[in-house]
This record gives sequence, C-alpha cells and structure tokens, in this order.
Amino acid sequence: MEFVAAPARLSTADATFEHDFAQRLHWSADTDAAIEQRVADILADVQQRGDAAVLEYTARFDGLQAGAMAGLELRQDELKAAFDSLPAEQREALESAARRVRNYHEAQKKANGESWSYRDEDGTLLGQKVTPLDRVGIYVPGGKAAYPSSVLMNAIPAHVAGVQDIIMVVPTPRGEKNALVLAAAYVAGVHRAFTIGGAQAVAALAYGTATIPKVDKITGPGNAYVASAKKRVFGIVGIDMIAGPSEILVLADGSTPPEWVAMDLFSQAEHDELAQSILLCPDAAYIEAVQREIDRLLPEMPRQAIIAKSLTDRGALILTRDMEEACAISNRIAPEHLEVSSRDPHRWEPLLRHAGAIFLGAYTSESLGDYCAGPNHVLPTSGTARFSSPLGVYDFQKRSSLIEVSEAGAQTLGRTAAVLAYGEGLQGHARAAEMRLK
Amino acid sequence: MEFVAAPARLSTADATFEHDFAQRLHWSADTDAAIEQRVADILADVQQRGDAAVLEYTARFDGLQAGAMAGLELRQDELKAAFDSLPAEQREALESAARRVRNYHEAQKKANGESWSYRDEDGTLLGQKVTPLDRVGIYVPGGKAAYPSSVLMNAIPAHVAGVQDIIMVVPTPRGEKNALVLAAAYVAGVHRAFTIGGAQAVAALAYGTATIPKVDKITGPGNAYVASAKKRVFGIVGIDMIAGPSEILVLADGSTPPEWVAMDLFSQAEHDELAQSILLCPDAAYIEAVQREIDRLLPEMPRQAIIAKSLTDRGALILTRDMEEACAISNRIAPEHLEVSSRDPHRWEPLLRHAGAIFLGAYTSESLGDYCAGPNHVLPTSGTARFSSPLGVYDFQKRSSLIEVSEAGAQTLGRTAAVLAYGEGLQGHARAAEMRLK
Repeated sequence: MEFVAAPARLSTADATFEHDFAQRLHWSADTDAAIEQRVADILADVQQRGDAAVLEYTARFDGLQAGAMAGLELRQDELKAAFDSLPAEQREALESAARRVRNYHEAQKKANGESWSYRDEDGTLLGQKVTPLDRVGIYVPGGKAAYPSSVLMNAIPAHVAGVQDIIMVVPTPRGEKNALVLAAAYVAGVHRAFTIGGAQAVAALAYGTATIPKVDKITGPGNAYVASAKKRVFGIVGIDMIAGPSEILVLADGSTPPEWVAMDLFSQAEHDELAQSILLCPDAAYIEAVQREIDRLLPEMPRQAIIAKSLTDRGALILTRDMEEACAISNRIAPEHLEVSSRDPHRWEPLLRHAGAIFLGAYTSESLGDYCAGPNHVLPTSGTARFSSPLGVYDFQKRSSLIEVSEAGAQTLGRTAAVLAYGEGLQGHARAAEMRLK
Repeated sequence: MEFVAAPARLSTADATFEHDFAQRLHWSADTDAAIEQRVADILADVQQRGDAAVLEYTARFDGLQAGAMAGLELRQDELKAAFDSLPAEQREALESAARRVRNYHEAQKKANGESWSYRDEDGTLLGQKVTPLDRVGIYVPGGKAAYPSSVLMNAIPAHVAGVQDIIMVVPTPRGEKNALVLAAAYVAGVHRAFTIGGAQAVAALAYGTATIPKVDKITGPGNAYVASAKKRVFGIVGIDMIAGPSEILVLADGSTPPEWVAMDLFSQAEHDELAQSILLCPDAAYIEAVQREIDRLLPEMPRQAIIAKSLTDRGALILTRDMEEACAISNRIAPEHLEVSSRDPHRWEPLLRHAGAIFLGAYTSESLGDYCAGPNHVLPTSGTARFSSPLGVYDFQKRSSLIEVSEAGAQTLGRTAAVLAYGEGLQGHARAAEMRLK
C-alpha cells in the first residue's frame, strides 16, 4: 500500500488564509461523558476499598492477576536488573541523557528556584522559602506509548527539586514489562514503582491505599481515562497540565537542507495521527523542496501510515510574506516545539513570545531536545504555551512567604492595615493590627 | 443575643486525639451537580452568543440593566474619580499598600523570575526565556465580599510581571459600585474594567466577546459559580487555585500577649462561618488565657455572630507536648496562614515545611500581611500548601526552553538521541538526529 503525505498548502497572501488557517488549527479536547462517569466510579471505589479495588481493576483492565499488592510492586533490584540487561549502547545513552537532563535542571533550580529574603528600612524581613514537595507520583503509560525518556523527564526534575519520595506507576498489560522503562526508573532514581495504570492508579496515588502511599502531586501523560482522573483529583493533589496532541512548528528561512526539515516534520507526525507539523517559510521554492523530500523519504519510514495521515489531516506548509510575518503567526499558534531553522536564529528569537521550547539553528533538531539536550520534553500543547511552561524543578517545589515585622514596622504597617481593614468592614483585622501599636 | 465562641479543646496526649483532630480538619469542597450544569449552560451560551448573553445574564443575576455593553464598562476616568472621592487617609493607605506590594513582587521577580542561559563545553546553548502573559483577567467579587486589597494582590504581580493588558471584572448588583474597589483598580493600574460577574464573566474572559477581550489566564476568588466556571475553562485559559475557606494556625510558645492571639484568631474567623482558626501551644495555662481573652473580646466585635459560629464549629485550641510536636502537627495541616508567635521564631521556622505564608514573631499579625506587608495574600488553602504556592509574579509569567545545539554538540547528542529513539520505535526522531551527523 502506498501512502501520500499531503500537508495543506496555505499562503498568507490568499484571501481565504484566515479561514483555512483557523480550520487547520482547530482541535478540541472533547470530554466523553461515558468515560467521565466510569472514571468517577473508579475513583470513588478506590477511595473506599483501597488495595482490593486496585487489584480488581488491574486484573480487569490490564489482564494482570496479582494475588496481593506485593505482586504489583517493582522492587529496586528488578529495576537494576532491567538496566543491567540492556545492551551497553542503551545503558550509556540512558545515563548520558540522564546526566544532561540533571545538569540542566540543576541550573534551572539555581537560576529560579532558591529561597530569598530581604529586610526593608524598618527591619521587616520579607521573602520566600522554597521547599520541595514531600512525595510525588509519576504516571508512565504502558503498552505502545511506553517512553523511557518520559521517565527521565518526570523523575529527574523531582529529584533535583529534592523530593524524597518519587513513586512511579506504569501499567504492564498481561504482565509485559518494558525493560527500557524499568531501566530509566533505575537511572532516574525512582524510589518505588508499581505496575498499575489507568484511573485506578491515579486514584491510588491521590487518596493513598494500605500499600500505595498518598502523594502530593501527580505528573506524567496518559490516555483519556488518566487525563480525566487527573482533572478530578486536582485540588486533592497537584497535577501537571493535561497534554493534547504533540506539535512542531518550523520557521525556515530556506537555509537548512530541506530533507532535515522534512524529517523534523516526520518526527512529530510519527507520534500519532492527531500530531501536528507545520512549516512557515517565506520562500515558495523551499516549500516545494521540502514537499519533494517528504515524498522521497516517506516510503523509508516504518511509521509511514501514521505520518501520512497526520501530515495530510493536520499538517500545513505555509508561505509567508517574510520571516517577521512567520514569527507573528507562530505567536498566534504558541506551539509546543518551535524550530527556528535559520542562518540567523538570534535575529528571530526575540520576536517569538509564546512557545514551549525554542530550537535555534539548523543543527538543533527537536529530537535532540526530546531525548538528551537537557531541557524538559514535557511541554505545553494546544496553544497553552500562552500561559504555561515546560515541566521543571518549579513543578516539584512550592513557596511559603516569610514575613517578620519588626516592632517599628508594626507601627507604620499597623496604621495602613487598620484603615484598609475598616474600609472592608473587617474589624478583627483592624484591631489585630492596632493592638501592636504602642 | 449573646454569642459564645467555644473552640474545640484538644490535647495530643488524649487517646482520642487523632480521631478528634481529623474530624475538626475535615472539609470537603462538595460540588453541586445543579450548579455545575447551570454553569456549563452559561458558558456554552456566552461562547455562542457573546455580548448578548452577557447582557442578559447581568440583567437577570445582578439586576443590572445595561442597554449595551458600553454601559458595563468602567472607564479610566471613573476609576480615578472613585480614588479622588476617598478620604485622604484611605487614599494614602491604598497607595502605601500598593507600593509595598509592588516592591515585594519586584524583589520576587528579580530573585526567581528572570531569563537565564548557559553554554556547555560543546558550545550548546541551554536556558529559559521568561516572558509575561499577554493578557489576564482578574475576577473581583462584588457585594459583601468586595475587597479592594484583593484587587491590589491580583493586579500588582501581573503588572510587575509585565502583563500589558489587565482586565478586571467586578459584579455591581443593581449598579452599586464599591468606591474602594474602583480606587484600588486605579492604584493597581488595571487597564480595563467591566461590571460583570458570575460564570458569565468567566466565560466572557475565557472565550472573548465582541466587547470583552479574550484573556490568557483568569485569577481571583469567587463564589461556587465562579469556581465551577474557572475549573471548566481551565486548559482554554490558565487559572489560579480554587480557594477553600480561609484558615489561620497560630503556633504559640506563650510569650505573646494572649489578647493579641485571640484577636488574630478572630481576624480569620470573621471572614465567614467556614473559616478555621487553630491554636497549637504546649502551655495549658496560656491556652486558658487565650480562651478568657476570646470571651472578653467577643462582645466588642461587630461580626461576633460569624466569629462565634466559626470558632465553635471549626476552631480548635490544641495542647501539644512541646513546640516540636506543634510544628509537626502544623506540617500535617499545611495551613494557609501560619503565625509563629514565639520569642524565638527562627528556631521553629526551619521545622515548618508546608504553609502558604509564615508570620514570624509576635508583631507580625496576619492582618499586616493581608493588607500591606508586601507578600501576596492569595494563598493556598485546605492543605494545598503541600503542593502549591502564594499567587506571585510567576503566575503571570511563562517559560520557553531555549536550545541551540552547535555542530559539534549535534555529533554527540545525535548518537545518544538516535539510540534512545530507536529503542522507543520512533525512527523519524532517530533519523532527524542522524541527518545532523557528519
């Protein structure tokens, strides 16, 4: 069977551009009422019956019969054995990636994640204490989409933040374990791991059971059940963003070999049919060249069926008037991954206001960032980069304000506070301030 | 009518302590299915009909008839006029509070909110660009709970972050405007303001209408309709935490005048009947003294009915074995406001791991922090300080990872990425990395 990858061909000069562009970008995270109800039931059941419910759902949904919860725990020696079983090349790649990811997140913590305080002229101390979360849960999908790199990207920032207890859950349908995932958990320093998944795993982490410790936050991607469960337990525990389909946007000035750009578009499209790959370029001949490389390279790709459908249904090659306009359109999209495939990427970077990660220059393929450059690959999707950020050390820290008002400070602050408190009709607040006046 | 404030009297030495303590802490944010359905309907209606729906709901729920949307906008000169109309004392208090809140948040931005980057030994650039959100919406409750201080606490960090467009919504039932709220909007530099509220205001901000600009994030407290609406639009826009009832926990070593502590407990209890005030203290005689001050001061309080009910239903005076145990219990509660009313607060502060804000020493009444010390008064409630933080400049910023891999870097990173990508079955990722190898 022959596949064709035919991304939409748009031009900002077309009268229909706005309409076509909006249609191509449209994606809606439909919530399925039936799934929501089933998830609500599973959460309530695990909250009530604990381990017994977890065992039952794991048998029913994952086909994994464990007589007792001990049968659902992956011991540390099993994680180490998985690591030891890998070919040297994979062991080294995992360790090298982990080292770079750790270095980057340590720099992130140092730059933006330390406690701070100062004293004002009255001697009043003001600041914030930054502390790690006590315990976090990391959801790792099983089956097809079992990505060891996601284990590193979730567990390492938690580690760097100083989280003392990192609990991983990963479903193992019919008991099939992914050695790379287990090895990544070993390398990343996961403290405990359980072979459970779905809404029942989210519930176990959020409420705790006799066996599974209650966590403070749950991060990591999952299917519609997992996403719905995370939304429901939000508030009882913290959660990271709910991810939509993955996206890449390439801003090209025509200086990068077109086959590199074609393969970068593939690398996003191969994730799944809903993934979105977009090229923005002011050079019509270059866009043609990229399309030719797409046609040439597609038959070589094992995942060509997915790539062809993703590019045809959701991809776009967009001709812009110039690079400035391409940057402006990129800001409207607020892409998850943004490649600036230009001879002069630092010229354009300041114009780019919204993106999960910005990959500068022809050598910076998204795939390097996905695995080992160092920055996190968990990024805001579906335009949420307008208001949210990559997963980071800050997601595993929280802040407490510190205030120590001196006796002198209480005299001036007390008067201001009392005026405002009386203005709000809160006399208790006012008098608490006034009592500290001399 | 005479009111009695009788907080529960617990002792950690009692056999029933764990049970009584759990019962006292119990609070559940029950979601009302009827409210949820009405909110879903309102959101869908505003999304579809825009301004027309906003006008109708505002007339129906707020009794405010505006022929056109222009009638629902508060112009800048109206905000300024409200400020000018205030007594000098209130104007000065607002400006002084705003100045201190601004200074604190500028320090916060400088400490934890600046872009950073570094180059590794291969010349690869790694870092994060920190940028402000483009546009945010601030929800300010109307009616009874109209707090000008909340306007400052939401708008100023947005301003300091660099947000160019701060949109305030505040319902004005039957057209009644609160001059202090309008004045606070003027002082805080709100860019546009509309007299709308409820789920319809949240919908207008999240989806945009012909008149009301679509924002990137919505912050600020509100009633059950507002909270439900914010939860529903989460993902389309960012939101801050959904707040539960307000809480204070006082850790006392017995060195603070007991009437100060009694008034501090009142200042939380007066918010509403669900508010929670707890004292932890190892000195039984001091606890008695605080109870005597509660009895003595209560009749003087205009809001004594609310205070009495809040303290009796939800308050507690807890005798601990020592201050260390008091700190451990405080960590289990993870209070919103934590006063360390001790002669030596810095001895205990390092033991306190979870709290929204920590007030150190007898002079630091919570009310000073609520209005004008500088730190934000929007704090995590209901134990969510275990995983979340005060509202801050960081809530109005987002981060984009920056990666620029050098040609040399692409050689080593490319090999690592390819090994891992083949291991995950993602050949497009692997080949994109390999194409950059020499």
